[in-house]
Amino acid sequence: MTRATPWPALDGIAYGGDYNPEQWPREVWDEDVRLMREAGVNLVSVGIFSWALLERSEGVFDFAWLDELLDLLHANGIHVDLGTPTASPPAWFFHAHPEARVVTRDGRTMGFGSRGMASPSSPAYRTAVARIADALAARYAAHPAVVMWHVHNEYGVPVGEDYSPASVAAFRDWLRERYGSLDGLNAAWGTAFWGQHYGDWEHVGAPADAPSVVNPAQRLDFARFTDHQLRACFRLERDAIRAHATQPVTTNFMANQSWTTDLWAWGREVDIVSDDHYLWAADPDGHVGLAIAADLSRSVGGGAPWILMEHSTSAVNWQPRNVAKRPGEMARNSLTHLARGADAILFFQWRASRSGAEKFHSAMLPHAGTDSRVWREVVDLGTALGRLGEVRGARVQAEAAVLWDFESFWAQDLEWRPSVDVTHQAQVRAYYEQLWRDGITADFALPGHDLSGYRLVVVPAQYLLSKADADNLAAYVRGGGTLVVSFFSGIVDENDAVHPGGYLAPLADVLGLRLEEFLPLREGETITLERADGAALTARAWAEDLIVDGADVVARYVDGPAAGRAALTRHAYGAGTGWYVSTSLDADSLAHVMAAAYADAGVSASVVPAGCEVVVRSSDEHDFTFVVNHRDDAVDLALDGTELLTGAPTDGALTVPAGGIAVVRTAREEAGRA
Amino acid sequence: MTRATPWPALDGIAYGGDYNPEQWPREVWDEDVRLMREAGVNLVSVGIFSWALLERSEGVFDFAWLDELLDLLHANGIHVDLGTPTASPPAWFFHAHPEARVVTRDGRTMGFGSRGMASPSSPAYRTAVARIADALAARYAAHPAVVMWHVHNEYGVPVGEDYSPASVAAFRDWLRERYGSLDGLNAAWGTAFWGQHYGDWEHVGAPADAPSVVNPAQRLDFARFTDHQLRACFRLERDAIRAHATQPVTTNFMANQSWTTDLWAWGREVDIVSDDHYLWAADPDGHVGLAIAADLSRSVGGGAPWILMEHSTSAVNWQPRNVAKRPGEMARNSLTHLARGADAILFFQWRASRSGAEKFHSAMLPHAGTDSRVWREVVDLGTALGRLGEVRGARVQAEAAVLWDFESFWAQDLEWRPSVDVTHQAQVRAYYEQLWRDGITADFALPGHDLSGYRLVVVPAQYLLSKADADNLAAYVRGGGTLVVSFFSGIVDENDAVHPGGYLAPLADVLGLRLEEFLPLREGETITLERADGAALTARAWAEDLIVDGADVVARYVDGPAAGRAALTRHAYGAGTGWYVSTSLDADSLAHVMAAAYADAGVSASVVPAGCEVVVRSSDEHDFTFVVNHRDDAVDLALDGTELLTGAPTDGALTVPAGGIAVVRTAREEAGRA
Amino acid sequence: MTRATPWPALDGIAYGGDYNPEQWPREVWDEDVRLMREAGVNLVSVGIFSWALLERSEGVFDFAWLDELLDLLHANGIHVDLGTPTASPPAWFFHAHPEARVVTRDGRTMGFGSRGMASPSSPAYRTAVARIADALAARYAAHPAVVMWHVHNEYGVPVGEDYSPASVAAFRDWLRERYGSLDGLNAAWGTAFWGQHYGDWEHVGAPADAPSVVNPAQRLDFARFTDHQLRACFRLERDAIRAHATQPVTTNFMANQSWTTDLWAWGREVDIVSDDHYLWAADPDGHVGLAIAADLSRSVGGGAPWILMEHSTSAVNWQPRNVAKRPGEMARNSLTHLARGADAILFFQWRASRSGAEKFHSAMLPHAGTDSRVWREVVDLGTALGRLGEVRGARVQAEAAVLWDFESFWAQDLEWRPSVDVTHQAQVRAYYEQLWRDGITADFALPGHDLSGYRLVVVPAQYLLSKADADNLAAYVRGGGTLVVSFFSGIVDENDAVHPGGYLAPLADVLGLRLEEFLPLREGETITLERADGAALTARAWAEDLIVDGADVVARYVDGPAAGRAALTRHAYGAGTGWYVSTSLDADSLAHVMAAAYADAGVSASVVPAGCEVVVRSSDEHDFTFVVNHRDDAVDLALDGTELLTGAPTDGALTVPAGGIAVVRTAREEAGRA
Repeated sequence: MTRATPWPALDGIAYGGDYNPEQWPREVWDEDVRLMREAGVNLVSVGIFSWALLERSEGVFDFAWLDELLDLLHANGIHVDLGTPTASPPAWFFHAHPEARVVTRDGRTMGFGSRGMASPSSPAYRTAVARIADALAARYAAHPAVVMWHVHNEYGVPVGEDYSPASVAAFRDWLRERYGSLDGLNAAWGTAFWGQHYGDWEHVGAPADAPSVVNPAQRLDFARFTDHQLRACFRLERDAIRAHATQPVTTNFMANQSWTTDLWAWGREVDIVSDDHYLWAADPDGHVGLAIAADLSRSVGGGAPWILMEHSTSAVNWQPRNVAKRPGEMARNSLTHLARGADAILFFQWRASRSGAEKFHSAMLPHAGTDSRVWREVVDLGTALGRLGEVRGARVQAEAAVLWDFESFWAQDLEWRPSVDVTHQAQVRAYYEQLWRDGITADFALPGHDLSGYRLVVVPAQYLLSKADADNLAAYVRGGGTLVVSFFSGIVDENDAVHPGGYLAPLADVLGLRLEEFLPLREGETITLERADGAALTARAWAEDLIVDGADVVARYVDGPAAGRAALTRHAYGAGTGWYVSTSLDADSLAHVMAAAYADAGVSASVVPAGCEVVVRSSDEHDFTFVVNHRDDAVDLALDGTELLTGAPTDGALTVPAGGIAVVRTAREEAGRA
Repeated sequence: MTRATPWPALDGIAYGGDYNPEQWPREVWDEDVRLMREAGVNLVSVGIFSWALLERSEGVFDFAWLDELLDLLHANGIHVDLGTPTASPPAWFFHAHPEARVVTRDGRTMGFGSRGMASPSSPAYRTAVARIADALAARYAAHPAVVMWHVHNEYGVPVGEDYSPASVAAFRDWLRERYGSLDGLNAAWGTAFWGQHYGDWEHVGAPADAPSVVNPAQRLDFARFTDHQLRACFRLERDAIRAHATQPVTTNFMANQSWTTDLWAWGREVDIVSDDHYLWAADPDGHVGLAIAADLSRSVGGGAPWILMEHSTSAVNWQPRNVAKRPGEMARNSLTHLARGADAILFFQWRASRSGAEKFHSAMLPHAGTDSRVWREVVDLGTALGRLGEVRGARVQAEAAVLWDFESFWAQDLEWRPSVDVTHQAQVRAYYEQLWRDGITADFALPGHDLSGYRLVVVPAQYLLSKADADNLAAYVRGGGTLVVSFFSGIVDENDAVHPGGYLAPLADVLGLRLEEFLPLREGETITLERADGAALTARAWAEDLIVDGADVVARYVDGPAAGRAALTRHAYGAGTGWYVSTSLDADSLAHVMAAAYADAGVSASVVPAGCEVVVRSSDEHDFTFVVNHRDDAVDLALDGTELLTGAPTDGALTVPAGGIAVVRTAREEAGRA
Repeated sequence: MTRATPWPALDGIAYGGDYNPEQWPREVWDEDVRLMREAGVNLVSVGIFSWALLERSEGVFDFAWLDELLDLLHANGIHVDLGTPTASPPAWFFHAHPEARVVTRDGRTMGFGSRGMASPSSPAYRTAVARIADALAARYAAHPAVVMWHVHNEYGVPVGEDYSPASVAAFRDWLRERYGSLDGLNAAWGTAFWGQHYGDWEHVGAPADAPSVVNPAQRLDFARFTDHQLRACFRLERDAIRAHATQPVTTNFMANQSWTTDLWAWGREVDIVSDDHYLWAADPDGHVGLAIAADLSRSVGGGAPWILMEHSTSAVNWQPRNVAKRPGEMARNSLTHLARGADAILFFQWRASRSGAEKFHSAMLPHAGTDSRVWREVVDLGTALGRLGEVRGARVQAEAAVLWDFESFWAQDLEWRPSVDVTHQAQVRAYYEQLWRDGITADFALPGHDLSGYRLVVVPAQYLLSKADADNLAAYVRGGGTLVVSFFSGIVDENDAVHPGGYLAPLADVLGLRLEEFLPLREGETITLERADGAALTARAWAEDLIVDGADVVARYVDGPAAGRAALTRHAYGAGTGWYVSTSLDADSLAHVMAAAYADAGVSASVVPAGCEVVVRSSDEHDFTFVVNHRDDAVDLALDGTELLTGAPTDGALTVPAGGIAVVRTAREEAGRA
């Protein structure tokens, strides 16, 4: 289902970044505006960290400098995404409300001096954020420069869980609401284990440091509560703005780089999804992580165009080794986001800061000034985006979906799991990366979603899977879908309790097997599997004792603790097929398995060369095929249409140079799915 | 000396595990009892974590469910080891007595939500544990199901040292008692160093975090105090029970897996020693660690039969990689414990928990149910134990002893020792493992024990050794014993003060040498030694400057910092021999040295194949020879008797299949030692 | 410039160590004094940790034992360096003034029980240290044994930064003094970034734990403040002593092993520089670190003779693996310090302690007693020093200087720098070590010093470099100097703000280039450079995008992120030359580069064999050439003069045996520099 898309009132693809002029003398502002125009910037985010300069003391506002700034921007045709500065309350706030400071799980009270909100459960903080949001919206709702509102910054980072007294009290209220009675809570948390029964609501606390491992259901609920409190803060600000303003309201996520917020729930609260994304420098294939973040941003917004609110022109500053982007890489990153649904390409930040914790973060205008590679590429990117305006609003089509469930992440990441070598993230990445290498564009989805529109659904380590959601997956297969389930899926219910019937029980019918025991491997151990045709596969970290009950055995363990037993299975179920992969396959081995699943699903792997990324966005009339060449040599593709960056017809043969990008417009071949 | 052995009133070898029915609906109880009978279970531990359900609020008891449970078990012939639930006080307790919470060394207060007792020095906690123990004993002393009392659970884990104000005050009292005067304390702690002199008892505190390393004698005393406080809590409960009940009282240790309790002292307090043991999955020879734990459990109980209170049917859940046991491994583990003196084989736990921190811990009845490998092996083990009833009460004979002194452990494990590569544990394991590989059954002993019954005594890194204990070792050698002393022995006295005369001084006469200086090696460095016959040995981590003063040099350092100097020595002293090993030998090299020491001692290494474990238990009339085959192939032994698991005569030749076990009864050949 | 050198009133080279007789019974004192005479000891440090025994409770003094001790030492001709015991306040102090305890950055309050001062900002502590220093000075100023005062011990270790309330209040005062106004502070700290603007002095705090990275300028100021507070404590004691006494006053530094004190500032406060130095055992070339420490000690004292206050006869006890010194090593270490300007060779400590945290620290009189290698070498060293009396007061000549700036260290070591693989220490070591290997003696200097006396100045990672200091370096080159600048120099100003114009901007003219972007490498990555002559160099961790603007390119990057671009440059500027090294060269590659810089500077690498250390001290009449042979074989040198340790003429050819030392006196060849 496609939902209506509000969008900031501006033409073409939005281009720009965070703009923090309060760090600079007034004369620099004029230079900034001149250079923005040179680069084609049409949207800047303003005021993200300006609370202390806008509200000089409690309730005492000073808007003069912001008035001047917005007028200047408007006069130069630059639109404004106006921020609420609530991610960084002023020193006076913490001084007046020390009880609002965040407390860590191990009991340390977090002071002022860096960045980071106060406790999301603090009444003083909530009052303060509503006041500043209201004041800003009242003053600027009608300002012609303002085309969007940007609440807060990256909720969940660096402040997520909070163990302050205010938070504990709010958690208790949230639990009362959730469970109604202590009996409900005792049952859900399984407090009979380790003698944790509660006889009075006042005895229930947050899952802080304790002599041993804290009740995992309690910790899972605290993660849910944390997400809930952060969202409540967002809603408070959003509604204060809506009371005055009509422009769309967003808050910037950190998809695939932060895990304390349930983005599916947040996607329902914002008018437009926006996302911040930074390459992970240690990963030589960081662009795969980028694609995950982009696809997730699109998916939590229901497929609507979204905003890349922040990325970097080159290196960041907060990783162990902050690798700079190489020539062309920023453009490839930017157009990959666009290919995957972003209609706005923005950066942190416009001008590199001389002072503070992020002075080594790259910017559109670097410390080296305009006579620099980065600035020249920024200008070129502005030109390129100017040529892609007609792509705006086109939708990405996906035949496959990968499940991504924050609650399952939260539950699986708790202590005392069977093996530290098994992480949810790594399994999601492994399966997504295989799809990426095979040129298959995927959405992300929840196990409870309507999946009938997808030919293939992949389930990587969906540890927490409710019975109802498992039934939904079974219905999907019965209806003809192809489901690929990895090990460590379907283990616990929504209270982190093992399913009656044992591990994997809710998926037993659809997969045609039972799981008797986990068989984690020792550190560094590798094992071999053999397919029916004799081919060998390799795996690590994990094996299982499977009891086949209807499924076909596709491969067996040759060695390791499950030697001789079924390792990979395929089960014809209803009109569809259920695959099960009981170990962590190496990349080459996983490729074999997925190829077979594609055949069942009727999806075709792309024929483009390895390292070449192809994504299609479709409008009612056109397909826009994005080709991003990550290779060190040129590639040739048979593609007939008009290449938009050059404006030239391809005449059926497109050459994309090493590290280059092409966007080819063709007539629409098939109707959209939704 | 053999002491009288109280034993729970039941027939044959005890079999069963922890039973926590409060986690399950009532209808499950009936299934449990039925399946227990199917498996041959005759003893279950009940109530270990039931405090919150038995005492619903302070002084308000609810015994109805426990009455029903005990009656049900009794009606089905299943005996009960009744626990006191004091390892996990209820939420109401911590709410009412927040000052009773444990404080860590770095000042964090440990809250509710996992498991773990309150401060062992807290008056409120002591009052509460005495009340619940008294109430349980008063009610169930005469219940026919109850055959034993199980106080608390694993004292020292997860709560050992406590730095709460109550603990600090109690420590001060304990020190007054120990030293009588501040002069005594100042002298014992050597407070003249670093200006730590105390002029007032009120200034003395616990050894909490400080700017640099805290006084090691203070830390050693705090370890002693911690052990003392935990034992005081045990005695309080034990005596409350004894006021009503006549059944034996135990508490379950964690021999070789926890180091905060001095098990020699605890062995004197319990009626029966019981132990929990879990394989360390990362150790491919985990069964050697198992043998250490079993031998230590037997030794601290003076050789009397003991209870394996907990082990696992397969994987545990709290290690980094929780490797599952392979077919047959649970039986080998169980019968090895039995071979080494256990007359009860129990598990944690009967039925796998659906919820909580340990849901991935294996159980007798796994999540997969009765149609599972684990359940079938549980039933088979019950059958096997049923055939071994006549072994009950038989004693293990040992010609060798290995010293194991908790005070020395505590002292050696403190900061600022000569090399982080030298740990007490690793040295104990190295020497014990050599004995194990050579098929020599060993007891553990303290250096002050009467050792005259042993042909060989091994002293692995007895860092703390009082003058009196050193004299005891010398007397042992003079009397004809063979003593093997490793480096880092005899360094400090009971106050962690270097012995007058220098390192090793108290053992200088018996070893015929002086130790001038430690020569720790750099990380990863290996060195070579040469024996008189020219053979090369290899070692690592450590060397020494030895001055030979009467001893024969058995090997010299070829390279490294002590090149050319004595490395291994042998000293004829009185009627015996004192060996000294001044470095950390690799396994093959240690084997050579120990072989020579065996020759001196007149003990014979076993002739059974490598990887085959043989232990003998002897009653007045019979020897029961346990053969546990850890190999991947069958072994043949010349052994004439009756194999008890099959009931068949061996006719002089016994074949034990790969991974199998045999127990052969033969007529007693020699009288017992004690 | 040579400044007047006060010196303790004793003959020849001072020899001895810390003497803590309060740890021993009275009868041991007599043996101590006898053995001191045997070893040639003429100076001992007394009372360093004696506060609790001198001031038994607040204001109640007991000097009887110290009176007796000083009289005994004096009667035996042993001079005393009398300590103030303020590095370890008594238990009663902390009990009476709990608010004076130090608080760590993460909020833990550090208690009593180890060693370590109270908060340097605590009024109670300041009162107490002035009282005890005054009392000691009043009593012993006229004692004939006392020839020097030793304030405190190793300021900055183990107590450096303190976050107690007293410290926070003092920091605020210090900031008011530094900045005058909040506007000044806001500008210097760049508080506009991340919304950290301060509107009230009361809101300013210490840079304690916060949700994210704390403002780096705030942290840098807190490091300055910490140094300032520690120095204020020193001055308080020094002035209390000076009110009574005329002997010189020192406090012992830890040059090259502790970084919380700005030794350049401390050098101006003490009458004589003294230093503690311990080999880093994990470093196989620990003697290079020793040379750095010695040269730094000399340099911060303006070239005057200094005191090696502590080193060790053999192993220490606080490193992971405490490697013992091998025969001859202690003498080599001692005479290297002497060669580099020390006129006193002292040890921690005289007699090994039986108790406490440092019982495994070696001493002049070890646990093994006088029949030991260590004792024999101590006696021999006393004899050797007795023969070197005429060296006293001679000065070390240096043609090269290496910059060493504590403020730059502090700033660079903060969080979120471009790469964790780049540390200030490693760069200083790499360049110094190359000079050491080439036999070039170096001073250390600050970038603002008058450098005109040096032919060569090396700038290793001078991250923080003020514009004025950069101008001073440029003036040095214009005047004919040769400057070698490593990457990550000249990045920020004194407020940790990036220089206007970008990285390296203040050095752009002198180096003839611009720096566009840092290019940190991935973990473990290595890259290749090619010189103009085709030779290959290797490097790691870092590369840069350089824009050559006048400089000659000496080598280019062959691969890695800067492939094809300039890597090493040389720029003729004024009468001198500016070199730039944009990456972290491996040792062999750096040797090539430095050889070329030596040629520019007109300094000659030494022709002595590798591993042979040669340093010259010069008096008005003589050169004293120290040859320290670290090799495993003997070396022959052509050197005509008198070898002082043997008293024999060299007759033009000197053979120094493996591990040996020679000191050759020759007539002075050239006049001193200053």
